[in-house]
Order: sequence, then C-alpha cells, then structure tokens
Amino acid sequence: MANPGNVDIVIPTIRSLDFLEDWREFFQPYHLIIVQDGDPKNIIKVPEGFDYDLYNRDDVDKLLGSKSACISFKDGACRCFGFLVSKRKYIYTVDDDCFVATKPTGERINVVTQHIQNLQTPSTPYFFNTLYDPYTEGSDFVRGYPFSLRSGVPTAISHGLWLNIPDYDAPTQLVKPLERNTRYVDAVMTIPKGSLFPMCGMNLAFDRELIGPAMYFGLFGEGHPIGRYDDMWAGWCTKVVCDHLGFGVKTGLPYLYHEKASDPFSNLKKEYKGLFWQEELIPFFQSLVLPKNLTTARDCYLEIARLTKEKLAHIDPWFQALTDAMFIWISAWDHFNPPSSNP
Amino acid sequence: MANPGNVDIVIPTIRSLDFLEDWREFFQPYHLIIVQDGDPKNIIKVPEGFDYDLYNRDDVDKLLGSKSACISFKDGACRCFGFLVSKRKYIYTVDDDCFVATKPTGERINVVTQHIQNLQTPSTPYFFNTLYDPYTEGSDFVRGYPFSLRSGVPTAISHGLWLNIPDYDAPTQLVKPLERNTRYVDAVMTIPKGSLFPMCGMNLAFDRELIGPAMYFGLFGEGHPIGRYDDMWAGWCTKVVCDHLGFGVKTGLPYLYHEKASDPFSNLKKEYKGLFWQEELIPFFQSLVLPKNLTTARDCYLEIARLTKEKLAHIDPWFQALTDAMFIWISAWDHFNPPSSNP
Repeated sequence: MANPGNVDIVIPTIRSLDFLEDWREFFQPYHLIIVQDGDPKNIIKVPEGFDYDLYNRDDVDKLLGSKSACISFKDGACRCFGFLVSKRKYIYTVDDDCFVATKPTGERINVVTQHIQNLQTPSTPYFFNTLYDPYTEGSDFVRGYPFSLRSGVPTAISHGLWLNIPDYDAPTQLVKPLERNTRYVDAVMTIPKGSLFPMCGMNLAFDRELIGPAMYFGLFGEGHPIGRYDDMWAGWCTKVVCDHLGFGVKTGLPYLYHEKASDPFSNLKKEYKGLFWQEELIPFFQSLVLPKNLTTARDCYLEIARLTKEKLAHIDPWFQALTDAMFIWISAWDHFNPPSSNP
Repeated sequence: MANPGNVDIVIPTIRSLDFLEDWREFFQPYHLIIVQDGDPKNIIKVPEGFDYDLYNRDDVDKLLGSKSACISFKDGACRCFGFLVSKRKYIYTVDDDCFVATKPTGERINVVTQHIQNLQTPSTPYFFNTLYDPYTEGSDFVRGYPFSLRSGVPTAISHGLWLNIPDYDAPTQLVKPLERNTRYVDAVMTIPKGSLFPMCGMNLAFDRELIGPAMYFGLFGEGHPIGRYDDMWAGWCTKVVCDHLGFGVKTGLPYLYHEKASDPFSNLKKEYKGLFWQEELIPFFQSLVLPKNLTTARDCYLEIARLTKEKLAHIDPWFQALTDAMFIWISAWDHFNPPSSNP
C-alpha cells in the first residue's frame, strides 16, 4: 500500500458520497479532500469512518478571497482547488460516479496502489518499449532498447482508464449510445515525448511536487461559454511541461468502473465550442516551445499563460479570462505552497 | 481472412520446417517464400500441402548476380531477399522457432488475419488515443481527440509480440534466464510520430507498396562484425521514413508463442558492438530530417544511405560496407520492382 501520509484523494461532488462505500477498503486509509460544487447550503453526507476535509464554495471564497475567481463553479474543474490546498506529495482524483472495477480474474482493483506504483517507478518517454512498462514485474526492456535510457525519468502523471462507460465526447455518445468498454488491457505505458493525449480527470493521479502548479483545470462551467474541457486543458499544459522538464506521463492501468454516462445533449451544449477550438488549441500546444531557462512547472506555466494570451486571445474573449485566471492560479499556488515547501 | 492473393509469408531458415505443422490452419491459404540460409546443399523439408518458393544461397546469387552482396549470410537478415522478390502487397515474416499462441480464452491466434487487419485500418500517429486502437470493434476515439485527425493515416507496418520467450538482448537474457512473458496485453496501438522503437523481425508484417524499399535488413552475420541488429536497423530506417511520408506503425496484437531462447553467449558475441553503437545510431535517427521533396520510401532510403555514409562512417569501416549495400539494395529493388509496378 502507498504511504497514506503521502497521498490525498480529491473528489469533486454535488451530492452525498454514498459511492465511497464501494471504495471503503481502498480509500479509508487515506485523507480525502472533498470539493463541494454548486449550492454551499446543500449538505453532503460522507459515510462514517473516512478522514476528510470538505470545502464548499463559501470555504473556497473565504480561503482564496479575490483569488477564488480562478476556481470554476458547477463544473468538475473545481477539483483543482483540492490540488491547491493539499499538503501531500501525491494526488489521486476520482469522480463520484465511478466504482471499483474487477480484473478478468475477478480481483477488485485497488486504484490508489497502482497509481502510486506508476508514479514511483520511472517513465520512458524517449524510446518506445514494445513490451510496455519495463518496470513491471515479469517485464523488462526489449532487445534494441538503448542502455543509456533504461534508468528512465521521474513520473509526474498517471492516467487511469475506465471499464463500462468509455469517456466519449457528446457526438460519439449520440452515435454509439450503447457502446461499453469491456476490453481490459493489462498494460501501463509511457506516452512518448512530443505526443499529446486527451487527459481525462475521472481517474487521475499526479505528483504535486513535480507538476502541481501546471495541473490547473481552468475556467469552465457556470459563467463560461464552455465545459468538459477542464481536464483536456490541464492535460495539454501538463504534457508540454513534462516534456520540457524531462518528466514522464503514463497511461493504462488502473481501471475503474464508470457507471453513469452523462447526458449527451447537455454535454454537447457544454462541449460545442471546444469541438471547434481544439482544432486550433492542439496545434498550438504541439508547436509550443518553452525556453530552456525555465526549470520548474510553475515558471513553465506562467510562460504558457503568457503565450495563451498572445496566441489564442483572437479565438474568443474567454481566452483573456482564462489567461487572467491562470496567473491568479499561480499566485494562489504560491500562497498555499510557498517556495520553501515546494521544490 | 485476408485475401491470399495479396499476402506472402516470408520465412528465413536453416532447417526443415516442421514448425509449419502447427501453423497449417493459418498459413496454408497463403504463398510462402522460404529463404534458406547457410549451406545451399542442405535439404529443407517443407510439410506437404503448402504453396511455396524456396530460395537457397545459390538461387540468391543466380537471381541477383553481383547485387547478391547486399543479402546477408548466416543471419536472419537474409529474410529481406524474400521482400525483394515478392510480388504481393503485404508481407508477413515469421521465425521458425515460433508457434501459435493462444488468447486467455484458449482461442488459437491467427496472426496473419490480425496483422492484415492492422495494416488495412488506419493509424493515428499525431495524437495518442488512450483507449488504444480506435478502429477496433467496441472502441473509438475518446473525448478530446480532434475530429480532423480521426480519419488517420495509412498503416505501413504491423509489429506483433511474443508470449513465452521475450525478445531480450544478451545481457538481459544472462541476468534473467528464466523470465517468460505471460502477460497478454489485448491492444494494438500506433507508435506516435517522432518516437522510435525496437522493431523485432520475429513476427512482423508490412505493406510492400508503402514501405518495401526501406525494409532492408542490412549487412549482418558472416563476414561482418555484428549480428542481431538487422531488424533494429530496418526498424529505425522505416520508422523515420513512415514519419516523413505520413504512414503509421502499429505494435501490439497479434501474439505468437516464441519457444526457444537463442544462446545468450553466442548472442552477446553478435550483439557486442551493437550495444555500443546503438547509443550513437539512435540519436542519429532521432535527429534525422528528410527533405520535403522526397515522397517515396525508395527516395527516402537513398537519402538515409547517403547520410549514413556521411555521419556514421567514422564509427567503424563496416558502416561504409553497409552504405554500399544500401545502395545496391535499392538498385536490386528497382530491378525486381520496376516503377510502373510499384507506386
């Protein structure tokens, strides 16, 4: 088991957390940070026996003051408040419509243990290993893998997957309402340097010390023209920062069981602009080059904010608001994570 | 089943092909090209009922004349003679110590069908799809995958994997003599653009029309200071060419069962120089840029030959011989595959 003193589990929610009963054996050893979205007057019930802090919107406003403008409202993006106030090295974040998945053998999957193992073993972004994660028991580097690259690089992000309801966009949900993911792919792999990926926040872990300041989920949901791109935005930013700083990003195991597909019509409304914008945003991130003298995720992120303003503001006025929020986020990060505590 | 008129199965061997009995149900519909290595006087027995052409060294010399210098002797590299004389669109090549693997369900795996499916569906080298091959039944592109990239690009190479004996180098074989690969990873994926991989020739398929001229297995074995890097060399060259021309390379399914580990001491002798050289060769290929006006695998390959001579000849005189052989290979390719028949 991962050391509970090193891990916070962050859960954004608008409702009582009955789903934790299913996770009890795996989550109970850890501290939970619950970020309550929506009306702060609603009472969120948490099953007995869990160690948690719960922050509603009033708490966010109180703790951040004017800086609370960078935390989204009525969108999963609010989860990044939990990343900000955590004091632990590793974050695991999970959605409240997800449950424990089982391996083909029937064994219930401990997501936290697998994520922490992914984060505590190196990544191999500079050369592809055809037998997948060479640090997994029973595997290794194959013939032809350069020995100079076998020590790998530190892993900053572990992106887990989903059985049952796949993470599809609204158009795909509409076209394939009955498609379910039943394929258990028994692999963890490093996403190569220079390759972007669609990072989903549903089942995600990362090392706060390495990449925390860049793990900002942006301005989405109420008051904004777009939703459901919070994790994508964070994924593009963090991958570019990891590639620049020499950190690894893994995807694959662990799986969880995603029970409830969100409504495709409501999703389409939220995603609509993103479906157009991503065609411009992804080339922006693919060609983004960070100056060599930037050596921390924080400084890299400020540069991405600057470039977002310079290169993307023509797309929509919202990008100006996003840029402002990115700067505010870093100033909030500095406040909660003063340099001495955050290498 | 793939159209047998489109596929040649190429098998390099020094011995009678009893192993074909295990493959009969899957290979019998196809034409086999058997490349006999070693003493041409040895009689290679082929089980009844298979449609094949067998070429021994005398045949190679007769057909290629002075150009036969580009075909290696006493090394698996000789298999590329079969690629040269094939008239079919797809090549599947397999080693004679490999047998039919089974899925976890017990089903025997038809390697040819899976490889041809991999080659006949597009690849996605420009953005990583976290649910692996989006063209597989029951899968698709995940949320955040740009729609403009969903038609993919043509697939040129399908790299299959191995259960039981993994494809390790001699040092790893020595350190882990008992390690066996038992992990069946149920996935096919595109290796992203810009990322090199160690291509193994044991279970490999490709589209001759797209990438054939670059699928040269080099000068290895008898008379040369290095062996067991034939497929690696071809893998580096073809991946760079695929990236340049906008073709895809897939790895993953299908598995076969690799029965016999080759002798690690003999392997170490063959690989020895390669373990050093690859540290210089891989950065060479990683930074190799092909001019935009080169639009065929053939022309790209000639440029790689030119650059090999210019940039690698200082490593060892052997690289001069290799470069000469690369030019001879293309001239032989042109002879057997005149431009009109080879777009």
